[in-house]
Amino acid sequence: MATKPKLHYPNGRGRMESVRWVLAAAGVEVAVSSLSQQRAWDASRWPQWRTELDHLGNHLLFQQVPMVEIDGMKLVQTRSILHYIADKHHLFGKDLKERTLIDMYVEGTLDLLELLIMHPFLKPDDQQKEVANMAQKAIIRYFPVFEKVLRGHGQRFLVGNQLSLADIILLQTILALEEKIPNILSAFPHLQEYTVKISNIPTIKKFLEPGSKKKPPPDDIYVRTVYNIFMP
Amino acid sequence: MATKPKLHYPNGRGRMESVRWVLAAAGVEVAVSSLSQQRAWDASRWPQWRTELDHLGNHLLFQQVPMVEIDGMKLVQTRSILHYIADKHHLFGKDLKERTLIDMYVEGTLDLLELLIMHPFLKPDDQQKEVANMAQKAIIRYFPVFEKVLRGHGQRFLVGNQLSLADIILLQTILALEEKIPNILSAFPHLQEYTVKISNIPTIKKFLEPGSKKKPPPDDIYVRTVYNIFMP
Repeated sequence: MATKPKLHYPNGRGRMESVRWVLAAAGVEVAVSSLSQQRAWDASRWPQWRTELDHLGNHLLFQQVPMVEIDGMKLVQTRSILHYIADKHHLFGKDLKERTLIDMYVEGTLDLLELLIMHPFLKPDDQQKEVANMAQKAIIRYFPVFEKVLRGHGQRFLVGNQLSLADIILLQTILALEEKIPNILSAFPHLQEYTVKISNIPTIKKFLEPGSKKKPPPDDIYVRTVYNIFMP
Repeated sequence: MATKPKLHYPNGRGRMESVRWVLAAAGVEVAVSSLSQQRAWDASRWPQWRTELDHLGNHLLFQQVPMVEIDGMKLVQTRSILHYIADKHHLFGKDLKERTLIDMYVEGTLDLLELLIMHPFLKPDDQQKEVANMAQKAIIRYFPVFEKVLRGHGQRFLVGNQLSLADIILLQTILALEEKIPNILSAFPHLQEYTVKISNIPTIKKFLEPGSKKKPPPDDIYVRTVYNIFMP
């Protein structure tokens, strides 16, 4: 029996959430480190975290999480982890041209997702302004590209008529944006239909249901947890 | 005869310099767009730039450069461009494990390189502080990793005993850092030797000589050029 990949990250979305999404979409069960089970309200655990982090630090190539133990490797760097899983599970297209298209779509979507990842760490006054900025970026720069792709080829998936890393990261980003801006897709009918269809792929549907490894939207406790872990 | 890849970017390093490096290391000649031949001191050309940029904008997937026309595609997103060239020119290892190691090394090095790319756009007061920050990151977080890799396997290249994307981006970053901090490698004898050896690979040696497509360190004119192009 293959060992489950083990995810090392604080208990929240951050840069690990894309990895959780891609593994779930590929139907892979995961194990989580004790680091990812802690929440900052449990202050009595902080000394234990420090010990665990010090131990973990020896296994972090560039002294950073996310880190994923998988297939005998200790992978770091979000993109490298995503690429490895996508390669292994045939989520990267059928040839180099499809792969490159998927890569470009993923990179663009990650630029948008990065704004969401950083949002909870902004000063309260800046958070509302940043929601407006994210909405504008999504509506002007990113969503028109994907709407046009879907309208143009009339297929279910972005590239090569099969599920790829690009679909998974785009769905993750759309759903996270919709939590903040519910009507963000109102001008994009093809993306609306696409969102429903991709959400109904069985492995993804299961991930979207309660009890999965999907993390809730970041809250104050998550923010404090991250500060306590990385800036104690 | 194959068409030369055409690079669309302002006349300076920025996010295109890694692409110039990898194409040069692969022995590929490039063409440059008129955008990349302009310098901000020539104010009479600014209206023409605007026209060129408006035209170019129709071909930029996410409204951003770098963009590279290559093999009938218009590639955007720095990493996607680098990955495509690395795949095409066998700079990505011999199997998925080597590829993933190369990918992780590249991602770590790009995090360090990003500090160099943004440096000229900082306020003057912050620039000196940031040099200290870059030096610390390089010496504490990144260079020890590569020093240990080279010491460990005793080979010429980082991965698989052949030139890869990881070597090219690391050499680019080391040389750019040495321009600011000449003795940055003083505690890393294996990286010193590595830097000399990789610099002497014929295609790279040629790129390091005058008259190549390599761009000089960013100066005030480059900064003004970027502002005039992107924030007119």
